[in-house]
Amino acid sequence: MAKVLFGVDLGGTTVKMGLFDEEGARLSEWEIPTRKEEGGSLILPDIAASIQKTAAERGIAREDILGVGIGVPGAVVDEDLVPQAVNLGWKDKRAGRELSELTGLPVAVGNDANVAALGEAWQGGGKGFRNMLLVTLGTGVGGGVIVDGKLLTGATGAGGEIGHLHLEDGETEPCGCGQYGCFEEYASATGAVRVAKRVLAESGDDSSLRGREFTCKDIFDAAAAGDAPAKKATERYGEYLGKGLAICASVLNPEAIVLGGGVTKAGEILFDLLKPSFAKCVFPGCANVEWKLATLGNQAGIVGAAKLILDQVRG
Amino acid sequence: MAKVLFGVDLGGTTVKMGLFDEEGARLSEWEIPTRKEEGGSLILPDIAASIQKTAAERGIAREDILGVGIGVPGAVVDEDLVPQAVNLGWKDKRAGRELSELTGLPVAVGNDANVAALGEAWQGGGKGFRNMLLVTLGTGVGGGVIVDGKLLTGATGAGGEIGHLHLEDGETEPCGCGQYGCFEEYASATGAVRVAKRVLAESGDDSSLRGREFTCKDIFDAAAAGDAPAKKATERYGEYLGKGLAICASVLNPEAIVLGGGVTKAGEILFDLLKPSFAKCVFPGCANVEWKLATLGNQAGIVGAAKLILDQVRG
Repeated sequence: MAKVLFGVDLGGTTVKMGLFDEEGARLSEWEIPTRKEEGGSLILPDIAASIQKTAAERGIAREDILGVGIGVPGAVVDEDLVPQAVNLGWKDKRAGRELSELTGLPVAVGNDANVAALGEAWQGGGKGFRNMLLVTLGTGVGGGVIVDGKLLTGATGAGGEIGHLHLEDGETEPCGCGQYGCFEEYASATGAVRVAKRVLAESGDDSSLRGREFTCKDIFDAAAAGDAPAKKATERYGEYLGKGLAICASVLNPEAIVLGGGVTKAGEILFDLLKPSFAKCVFPGCANVEWKLATLGNQAGIVGAAKLILDQVRG
Repeated sequence: MAKVLFGVDLGGTTVKMGLFDEEGARLSEWEIPTRKEEGGSLILPDIAASIQKTAAERGIAREDILGVGIGVPGAVVDEDLVPQAVNLGWKDKRAGRELSELTGLPVAVGNDANVAALGEAWQGGGKGFRNMLLVTLGTGVGGGVIVDGKLLTGATGAGGEIGHLHLEDGETEPCGCGQYGCFEEYASATGAVRVAKRVLAESGDDSSLRGREFTCKDIFDAAAAGDAPAKKATERYGEYLGKGLAICASVLNPEAIVLGGGVTKAGEILFDLLKPSFAKCVFPGCANVEWKLATLGNQAGIVGAAKLILDQVRG
């Protein structure tokens, strides 16, 4: 029988799970709840039980299962240790070893944002590129760097955390990480709102955004409708985004940059907005990148988890 | 007999060559001139002849030579193709294939700055670290990024060119690459002079640097002697350096940062100058890096070239 892989995306509320073949085709997909009681100690046994049940139901022999990949909400060391995952109640959890003992299978553990990036690289917007940067523009800015087809995880699992590269001096509002002037303070959906509020404060022009709370989507919608300050805000947003991505590209020299997350619902206009600033800031030797949108949505996690274990067992 | 490797550092004037064992011990070292006439077409035959002569003199059998690594002054694609090396007169040169045909040996080609970084990582200041950033602070700022023990070369061989990450908006003097505000415009030896000139222009204080041309070394010497504007200049230099390195560290999460190049003759004070700014700008999850000085000097190139081919043949 063909070999299979389990991909697991462990979230604070649900555990998404998928069964894949070696080519990344999704054979099955399901969810179980994340039981966070008892310090999160039930989570891995629940996952192991669900894997065993699925294998039994589908008549999959143990020797045909290559292993289990799992993305977790926290930094990960050596594809095993999770020093802290606040949302799960985990601390110094040897998640890889534990799940391996529970299932009798090889297990690889990765940070969920990194793993999702790996999924997009394997089967999504980054398919076909060996060197790429994947950026999630959501509440924050998440990143994943793929070098020669593999995730760059760094010394302590914080590799590719491009949301916290220092972009601007003189910022007065702190980032969630405690520093000032991080890329994510401007380029996330929340950052877009911050940028727009500043544009409104500088401008005397009428705007449909004035005198109310608004979202990133509202800004792009208003800009599309011709609202001048909103248009200015999207342009400035694009400047920050292009500059931050140019910095990453100058260090990493990727073939492609893949953008995902809620902000990309704005569509192709995002590329139009960021490209002038990217061109202005990037090292010319790294300027020639392909621009892509992520395509897997919230399935990127299980796909990437399957790839993580595939890479581990296949080298 | 034990297996050996040849490491070649191809410069515009001389070709440095070395013979190494697999553990990186240097068995022999010599130089030949770089003959640039005839579009640089003599260079690789000269290198091949020198390798064969050395092997013959030392009684080394063909099967005991693992291969030849070579660092060249230009970007390199796929450890073979050199699209352009202005100093050598090369254009679209399949240097790896050609030298392999000339010698009958496996050959790996890399960019000289990257290869030198690999040398420092293997046997120099970065020894023992699997993930690190190596930075050469000389006339320009060169970089090399080691991920999981391997060089990050990027899509077109420009990976790790951190000298050209965009550091400052509003710069009025262009960088050699044509952009404005590159890291190297502030953090190279030349950059230190630029920074000092600006400090002098802002300050009314007396300084031994006024009214004459001066070098990076002059600035650090004057600062050590208590010259106030020179001291201010070294502090500002440290701010730029720390900020740029913080950006790299936030993206790459290295275990160690290794500094080399002429500016590091200033010594450990360089770390004192850059650390406050590094701490202020770095993502806290990436803040814990070891600081090292490069130790191989101009031998880093041959050592790294030997490692490049060792990695290729040993996987």
